[in-house]
Order: sequence, then structure tokens, then C-alpha cells
Amino acid sequence: MTDYKIINGTVLSFQEGAPVLEQKTLYIEDGRIAFFPAHEDRTYETVDASRRLIMPGLVNMHTHAYMTLMRNYADDVPFQEWLFNRVMPVEDHLPTEAAYWTSMLGMMEMIRTGTTTFVDMHMYHRQSALAARDTGMRAFIGRGLVGEDLYKDGYSRFSQALEEKEEFESGRLRFILSPHAIYSCSEKLLCQVAEEARKHHMLKQTHLSESVTEVEDCLKQHGKTPVRYLQDIGFLDSETILAHCVQMQGDDLDIIRASGASIVTNVASNAKLGNGIAPVPAMQAKGINVCIGTDGTASNNTLNMLREMNLLSLIHKGAGRDCMAMPSDYIVRAATYNASAALHDQQIGNITEGACADIIFVDLDAPSLFPNNNIISSLCYSANGSEVDSVMIDGRFVMRKGELLTIDKERVYHEVEKYFDHVKKETAQ
Amino acid sequence: MTDYKIINGTVLSFQEGAPVLEQKTLYIEDGRIAFFPAHEDRTYETVDASRRLIMPGLVNMHTHAYMTLMRNYADDVPFQEWLFNRVMPVEDHLPTEAAYWTSMLGMMEMIRTGTTTFVDMHMYHRQSALAARDTGMRAFIGRGLVGEDLYKDGYSRFSQALEEKEEFESGRLRFILSPHAIYSCSEKLLCQVAEEARKHHMLKQTHLSESVTEVEDCLKQHGKTPVRYLQDIGFLDSETILAHCVQMQGDDLDIIRASGASIVTNVASNAKLGNGIAPVPAMQAKGINVCIGTDGTASNNTLNMLREMNLLSLIHKGAGRDCMAMPSDYIVRAATYNASAALHDQQIGNITEGACADIIFVDLDAPSLFPNNNIISSLCYSANGSEVDSVMIDGRFVMRKGELLTIDKERVYHEVEKYFDHVKKETAQ
Repeated sequence: MTDYKIINGTVLSFQEGAPVLEQKTLYIEDGRIAFFPAHEDRTYETVDASRRLIMPGLVNMHTHAYMTLMRNYADDVPFQEWLFNRVMPVEDHLPTEAAYWTSMLGMMEMIRTGTTTFVDMHMYHRQSALAARDTGMRAFIGRGLVGEDLYKDGYSRFSQALEEKEEFESGRLRFILSPHAIYSCSEKLLCQVAEEARKHHMLKQTHLSESVTEVEDCLKQHGKTPVRYLQDIGFLDSETILAHCVQMQGDDLDIIRASGASIVTNVASNAKLGNGIAPVPAMQAKGINVCIGTDGTASNNTLNMLREMNLLSLIHKGAGRDCMAMPSDYIVRAATYNASAALHDQQIGNITEGACADIIFVDLDAPSLFPNNNIISSLCYSANGSEVDSVMIDGRFVMRKGELLTIDKERVYHEVEKYFDHVKKETAQ
Repeated sequence: MTDYKIINGTVLSFQEGAPVLEQKTLYIEDGRIAFFPAHEDRTYETVDASRRLIMPGLVNMHTHAYMTLMRNYADDVPFQEWLFNRVMPVEDHLPTEAAYWTSMLGMMEMIRTGTTTFVDMHMYHRQSALAARDTGMRAFIGRGLVGEDLYKDGYSRFSQALEEKEEFESGRLRFILSPHAIYSCSEKLLCQVAEEARKHHMLKQTHLSESVTEVEDCLKQHGKTPVRYLQDIGFLDSETILAHCVQMQGDDLDIIRASGASIVTNVASNAKLGNGIAPVPAMQAKGINVCIGTDGTASNNTLNMLREMNLLSLIHKGAGRDCMAMPSDYIVRAATYNASAALHDQQIGNITEGACADIIFVDLDAPSLFPNNNIISSLCYSANGSEVDSVMIDGRFVMRKGELLTIDKERVYHEVEKYFDHVKKETAQ
């Protein structure tokens, strides 16, 4: 593979979690970052990064990439209508092989807007892995699991997930277990998943306390909040990633903090579905590791992490009437550096010696960023995603000067349209 | 000037305020829109708008374009620090002629992200007019006014504004009067401005009820809310545009509704400065004409109306836990069509026979918009601004296929940097 010497750029890295900007040269050798060339006899392709910010690629910690098909498909409707009458009929009629193309459609938008790693969750495990393999993205692919007993009704899915793990897992593609939610998984299944996750050294992610209804139902059924419930059955630990956590009550945040689990906030999705605003400033104050996700496009309706970062800061400043809430250095860290701890991977989320070369190049001369009075601020308050002009993942350019190098856009559009036409015909019947 | 025949596009227009999508051919003749060619003997340049949405240009109803210099200059700091220690020292040292370039910098971002008309407010009246003249943007330029007596301390500014009106006013450049706020203008001055506005057939815009402090001070001083105060002194009428209106109390909204005044909501700025969230759903329910503004970049920090539209919808869905709040058709209307009533100009904000050809071309194949399940939704929930590929104002292309045609970006950057370096030297002393 090609090695690179990247000159003249402004490099954003984190030192003990605080963002630092420096003018420095980066060497990319065998897909890893170096500050000095380790091999003096090598030939490097020189990349001129003048007027570019080089920063760690954004990490989208919770999404459902295959759902990109349903962008703007069910908006401004109540949640029940959204799920049962709009989203589920499409899923019921979508051929499995279509998810390869609809996932790739999502990856196209992620790459364009500077995301290098995503954590996926759904039932199209294999198609997601194949698409990530082909686009070159780094992915943590979560097998969605529901039901009563992992070894009975969920067994084929689970064993298939293990087979795919065996087949595809690499430095760039990893597999995690994703029991859907406490209301769609039995206590037994959740305990089985926790045990299997430990056994196979897999992370686990689940949706938690997303809506008022979920919390109320749990209080009725178990006499405790969803967080306390998961804690009591032994599900929570530092290998756990909790998506949403919108409706926090009592000592929920203390429990999460003590468990070492990470939270992924999905501010656009929580707002758009009317679920509310998660108490992220309180999570921050408790010292919980908070990351950012876009959720799927059916509830966002974009996979643009820079949009998500902006919204996260502004919604809390506005709702809390606090101009100091969610400052830009915290937001930028949550979108990159914090993912490293959540994913137990020290090689991503920062620009350090030996880290994976997952870096993005941001055009500091973009009209939305000029003048560059404060580059960290501009990522949070000014960038719209279009300023990302090149993306490197694992040392390989997947976008360069705006051109996608691993995705055939026309082909993806053609396939997505073909399958969606099929779904529309089926659902109309 | 060139006439155009625009074929194969999907046209978004409003019929009685409701958005309608149609495949139709547009003719642009002498800067006006026609659905059929009025002059059969003319030569039209054909524009192929396949896979493009053609829609009315966005109208940014409240901004301070010259402030673009201060993008990300003072973030995550309290309001007093922001205004007195960061923003005002820059303004004090900025040479007047610099505002031509800093305003043009703002217009560059506005054009790129699909804004064709903006309402400006500040003391750099002439520089704003010159820059709008040269960029080709449609502008309503508001002379900022403060003080005790329009004919004494404010007279030179006011009379200068009238002279500039005389010199520059055209179909595309208009002038309005912009008393800054009730706390920086005396009752006398506000009444004088209202009278002069009527006399000269000028609109007026002011900041109103932006912060809790402003409302509390007014209640103490006058025993009534800022809205009631302006109503009682005869300031409010249908030629009045009220920026912000965040802190509404009692019958404030009824008073505004009855006066016929329009409101410009500035959701990002209100959030970012910690002023809160304006009750826009209540304004909508009352039938008040609501428009959208970005405010200046020092408190936003972008002039991207599509970002503003998204934020406006999501912040209300989240804060109100209401997935039906601020639906996309309302948002798109507020960013275009509603400006027509606020500005008393039937020729902008819609695509109708004889209207000004202020239209933008949105790339429906952009990765952020595909698949096009709902184009109106996509403008509100998915677009980030980069999908705008061409912009026509008054029948003239100012951006075409991403290329700015009226602005020399390098020159603008050079001049802005030069002046800002000067300001930094001065303020450091």
C-alpha cells in the first residue's frame, strides 16, 4: 500500500482529552500514523495539506446504515405511525441483498461528511460487513437481537453473527452484539447476550430509555427504571454502549457512571421523534463517557456528524438558557476521542504515533469557515459537512478532493432505486 | 441581459402558502419568471435542470453581514463578555471601508447556501449597499439607529441613510430603518423613526424581547412588556419586522398579531447566546407571519439558512417533545414565501408568473438528499447547504454549478485578513 508524507497541514489532536492544534508533518506508513519516518529508505507520496485542518475522522457511534433508503420517508408523523405503518412495512419487503446497497448509500454520505468509523445495528449483518469491506470504512457491526431466548428463537441469528465475525473480522471490521431494547428482549436473552459477549470478547450496544413510554412501562413492569433494571440483571459494564438515554431519572446517571458504560447521544433523532432532549450536560458533569451518533436517516434525516455536533451544542444552550453549555472543545472530543474509550480501541479517535490513519482533511478556506478565528469552534458552530475534502481510513484515501474513490455513486443509486421500486410495489398490494 | 429557458427541473412554488411540486419549464425574461414565452422572437439560453429542484431563493430576514469577520471570534463566553470585551472592541477599530469586504464575505456564504435576499442591520449602510450591488444579491439594508433624538444625535446617520436611499435604491436594493432596540433608543427616537418610516414609505426592523434582562428592565421601567410598550407608543404596524421575540409574556403575541407586524426568529443565535428558545409554535398557532434569520456570524456562527431551518424544526420538536411541531412545509414556507408579506414585496419568495427570478437550483442527486422520498422534508431535515449548485438573482446567475460568478474569493479573503490584522494590532495596544 502507498505511504504518505502529509505536509503543511494544521493537525488537531487530543492531549489528555483536550484539543491541541499544531503545524506538523505526518507520515502514514502501512496505514499507521507516524510523526517521524520510521523507514528512511521508503518512498512517500507527498500530500500538500496547505490551508487544511487534519483531524481524526468522526466516529458515528450509533446508526442503522441500511435505513438510508428511508430518508425523508416518514416525517412529521407520530411515532406509532412512523414505526408500524411506515418503517416496518418497508423492512418486511426489502430483499436482504438490497441492504448491501442501502448501507453503501449511507456510507457515501458518511464519508462525504467526514465520518471514518460507524457503529451499525440491525439485522443485515452480512450486507453491512460486505459494504464496509468494499467502501473501506471502519465499522463496528452490531447484530440486532430480539426475543425470549438467545438459544431458541434468536439462535440462528446469533450463530450466524458469530460465523460472520469469524469470516470478516479484521482490524477494520469488528462485530458487536446489539440486543434491541429492554422491551423487545427478555431478561433471559439480555443475560445470555451479556454472557456471550464476555465469552467472545465482544462489545454490546442497546437502545435504552429512549422514550417516556419505555421508562413508564419499565417502572410498571419491574418497579425500577430501565437503567436500574439493566444494572440489576448484570448487563452494564465498561464493554456496554447505551444509545439514547434521553429519559434519565433518579440515580440513573450515577449507575451508568459507576458501571463504566458509555452513552451515545442522538440529538436529532430524539428531537425529531418527539422523545425530547437527553440530559447531556449532566452526563458530562458526572464524568460519563459521552459519544455522538446520528441514528438512522429515517429519524434524522441525515448521517452528517457535523450537523449533529452543532445541534447538540445549540439545543442545550437554548433549552438550558446557558451560553456556556456544551462548548465546542467538548463537542469535538465527543465526536472523535471519546469513541476510543467506548470502543476499547486506542488506535482510533486521535492522531497519535502508531494510531490508525483515520484522518480527514477540512478545507479552512471554505466560505463557511473563513476567517479561521477559532478552528475548534468552527467545527462545532460553522461547519456543515461540505468542508471535508479528503478522507483517509486505515491509511487509504476513500475520498480525495471531493471525489469518492471506493463508491460508484451511479451504481448505488441505480440499485437503491430498483429495490425501493420493488418494495413500493409489494407494500401497495 | 440574457434570457433563459429552464427545462427538465422540478419546480417548488407555493399556492396559497402551501408548497407544490411540478415538472415545468420556466422562462426567464428581463429578470422575471414566465411560464410561457411572452416574446416568441427572443433567443433563450437553455438551462438543463434535470435532477434539480428549482425553488424560490431563501430569504435571510435578519443578519448583520459585515460581522462575518467575527465568525467564531467569541464563543462559549457569557453575553456581557461577548458584547463588551470581544465584539465592540473590534467594531471600534474596524475601518469603515473594511465593511465592504466583510459584508461581501457574508454574501459569499449566503449565495453558496442558497440565500438570494437578506435583510441587513448595522451602521455600515453604504458599504453594505456597495457590496450587495457588486455581488448581485437582493438586499434590504437597515440603518442601525440609537440615541435620544433622531434629529439631534442621530441626525447625521439618518440623513445619510436617506441620501444613500436616494443614491442606491433600485428594484434589488432597498432601504429600511432599524432602530436597534428599546434599551438603546429613547421613546422619542422610536416615535420619530416610526413617523419618518411612514413619511418615506420605509419598512422598519428592530430587535425585540431578545433576552430575559431586556424584558425585566422594561417591566421595571415602563410597567409593561417590550411588545406592549412598542404598541403603546405607536411603533407596531404591518410595516414592522421584529427580530427575536424570544421572551414573550401575557398577550404579547396577540398584540403582535393584531398589529400585522412580522416576526423573524433567529433560533441559532438565541440558543448560542443562551437567550433561550422563542415560542414559534405559538406564533404559528396565532397566525403571525413568521420568517427566519441567521443573525450575524458572531452569534451563530454561519449564515446558512438551511442549517437554520433544520435547527428551528428540531429544537421545537425536542424541547416540546412533539414530533409534529414545526413540520417541514411550514419551515420551507417561513424561509421563502413568508418574507414576501413581511417585506411587502409580492415579487419575491415564490415562483409565479412575473415574479423576480430569484431562484436556486438544488442537486437532488446529492448524497445527503438521495433517495428523494420527500423533497420538502429533505430541505428541512437533510440538506446542509452544499446541495445548492446554482443561484440566480434578478434573472442573473451569481453562482453556477458551484462557481461564484460575482465574487472574487481570493480578493475578499485577502482584504478581510488585512483589515482584521489591523484591528488585532489596534485592540492589542
